[in-house]
Amino acid sequence: MGPGPINADPRVLRAMSAQLLGQYDPAMTAYMTETMGLYREVFRTANEQTLLIDGTSRAGIEAALVSMIEPGDRVLVPVFGRFGHLLREIAERSGAEVHVREAEWGTVFTPEQIEQAVIETEPKILAVVHGDTSTTMAQPLDELGAICREHGVIFYTDVTASLAGNTFETDAWGLDAVTAGLQKCLAGPSGSAPATFSPRAVELINARKSIEAGIRSDGDEVRATPIRSNYFDLAMIFDYWGSKRLNHHTEATSMLYGSRECARLLVDEGIDNAVERHRMHGGAMLEGLRGLGLEIFGDVSHKMNNVTAVYIPDAVSGDAVRGELLDDFGIEIGTSFGPLHGKVWRIGTMGYNARKDTVLTTLAAFEQVLRRAGASVTAGGGVGAAYDFYADEAAGANAGEAAGADVREAELADLERAGL
Amino acid sequence: MGPGPINADPRVLRAMSAQLLGQYDPAMTAYMTETMGLYREVFRTANEQTLLIDGTSRAGIEAALVSMIEPGDRVLVPVFGRFGHLLREIAERSGAEVHVREAEWGTVFTPEQIEQAVIETEPKILAVVHGDTSTTMAQPLDELGAICREHGVIFYTDVTASLAGNTFETDAWGLDAVTAGLQKCLAGPSGSAPATFSPRAVELINARKSIEAGIRSDGDEVRATPIRSNYFDLAMIFDYWGSKRLNHHTEATSMLYGSRECARLLVDEGIDNAVERHRMHGGAMLEGLRGLGLEIFGDVSHKMNNVTAVYIPDAVSGDAVRGELLDDFGIEIGTSFGPLHGKVWRIGTMGYNARKDTVLTTLAAFEQVLRRAGASVTAGGGVGAAYDFYADEAAGANAGEAAGADVREAELADLERAGL
Repeated sequence: MGPGPINADPRVLRAMSAQLLGQYDPAMTAYMTETMGLYREVFRTANEQTLLIDGTSRAGIEAALVSMIEPGDRVLVPVFGRFGHLLREIAERSGAEVHVREAEWGTVFTPEQIEQAVIETEPKILAVVHGDTSTTMAQPLDELGAICREHGVIFYTDVTASLAGNTFETDAWGLDAVTAGLQKCLAGPSGSAPATFSPRAVELINARKSIEAGIRSDGDEVRATPIRSNYFDLAMIFDYWGSKRLNHHTEATSMLYGSRECARLLVDEGIDNAVERHRMHGGAMLEGLRGLGLEIFGDVSHKMNNVTAVYIPDAVSGDAVRGELLDDFGIEIGTSFGPLHGKVWRIGTMGYNARKDTVLTTLAAFEQVLRRAGASVTAGGGVGAAYDFYADEAAGANAGEAAGADVREAELADLERAGL
Repeated sequence: MGPGPINADPRVLRAMSAQLLGQYDPAMTAYMTETMGLYREVFRTANEQTLLIDGTSRAGIEAALVSMIEPGDRVLVPVFGRFGHLLREIAERSGAEVHVREAEWGTVFTPEQIEQAVIETEPKILAVVHGDTSTTMAQPLDELGAICREHGVIFYTDVTASLAGNTFETDAWGLDAVTAGLQKCLAGPSGSAPATFSPRAVELINARKSIEAGIRSDGDEVRATPIRSNYFDLAMIFDYWGSKRLNHHTEATSMLYGSRECARLLVDEGIDNAVERHRMHGGAMLEGLRGLGLEIFGDVSHKMNNVTAVYIPDAVSGDAVRGELLDDFGIEIGTSFGPLHGKVWRIGTMGYNARKDTVLTTLAAFEQVLRRAGASVTAGGGVGAAYDFYADEAAGANAGEAAGADVREAELADLERAGL
């Protein structure tokens, strides 16, 4: 129940135990093509270039940035948590002239602030994290696409922490490049990075295409200054996933099976239903934590559905509480980074773990551990507040709200999962 | 039965279906540490820095090269197949001044040729592939370490295609950096790259250490010109796998489970026994292909145990034969790249597929498909020659050769595997 990685959906793990296929077996390439289609639904995009990068979520970030950035390009990075610093770091190592704007941890930027920074720095690329688990904040992106279009800026975001747990729209929000990971709301293991690229981003990347020695054919593109990374060269990776089937790397077959299953489960559930499930169980966790007497960190109106940070009470050892929860109850929660290290705990409700039973069990155990650590807690306050929240949700559903029905369906799906 | 990826050992796939652990759960970090130890045995090294890169085998290559190469460094790459070109490409993109020597495909270099090139080019790094599946050749490396030491050169090799199927010694041969993959003789899926680095390589890499923004603490190293890649920054990756547990990336948990199981199975079998198993079944396949009347490609005295290339007979369509083997018999074999594309087939006997039953079944099916394609084949010639080879091996074992006993044990292990 930390900020991720979390328990994977058992169906994803089972999919990964399927036997391997040869890289160009028609069955394998058909799975690749099917996976592209599934992730178009998850990302809400019509982008042809929707595929997997073989590595963890930061592999997806590096592939996007190193393939789009030519040394000397200006990149604007609004930073509101640890992962904004990561975008900055990767852009700098890719040779960009990076301009940073920082928001206090626990807050986000207004569209006006972003536009002002765009005007001041005239970047080629705006690179911003959607949800930053380090602070639990989600940066609103829906107005930034229009700003980027107006100023001729490529718009990139990483949605590793937010996708499928919070509303996200690649095309409707005007994104040019989006990268993700499986280990949060997608309910899979780290190690595969779904990504999507708009025709504008593809044009930019393909203009840099240089086919590597050893598999180059007559007439193939060669450039004196290719993309700086071979492994993350998206121009070649597009040709691997496309009809050319360029032999760039050997696709990580088991991770592909896992990624495909993550997307299948989400599409079966319905992306909106999955977001609603995260909203509901995240809301129950938030109210439960308040009911225990804990203070929530940050601007709750911009908090992601799937993770909540609370201040560690004075005179309580954050690490000791985390250790007892893990050792004695088998429940993991997280601390945070930088200015928040040792100051907050982060509790996730994401992916396979965004369920009523996990929320209630975590609150029940947390109450016991906090009390034994000497914190002042209200007996039954956490679980009671969560039950109240669920009851209010159900009442809303009974009053005829469509979302409520979906939520009930999601609950049934959860039971089915737990029962395997 | 192609040149890889091949069928994974079912025990590896089962290991990958285990539930995830939190990244800093003591159980998880213990698995990481255990995996380091297992790969020290597989690589035959005492190197502390023996770990996994989260990506396919070329991710391992890029991590090694980009972390060791500073722009402008001279790198010598002896090329004897497709993957030599890949080393050259990755070294160039890392900013190196690359010097190439080429051997005709199907041959390898003598130590004298390599030393001459070292003297001529005075490289910082010698980067050479051990086994290049594109030609089936294995470059002898055992004399190159002394040459590198004498001339102050860092010695790097990629053993993705050869490790565990051919004798390989990291420390005894004087290697400074070695990278691998799981999808050949290690019997796992692509997507995790085991690697090992000598103290000399570690010193070189750590001299470039620059801890990324967002997780940097007071006193941590920061450099104006860090390693060009963040994802492949081995200095930070060492700190992630070491006691510092720097939060560089979220380890690909399922791939770690798979990598660990690949190494456990090899260590259980015994590395020498595994190599001997590949020698025996690769030898049976070679004799069987000859028995079918096919001509072997390349210098057989330098061929890897685990893959054999044969010329496609005139007037036979290589792709049609491959298609019929796959579609009608469920057996995949490969073609090759560049100058060998469409000229040879490559047949693997590696990892989980280095077994008597797979060798005989492949030869039996191959005979039928070749005959129907109009090739001149000897009825029963392939299977018969393989049986003869196995009989000779068994006779050798009865005469008291220790290797024979190990081989029989390996056969039993195979049966156990097939029976699960």
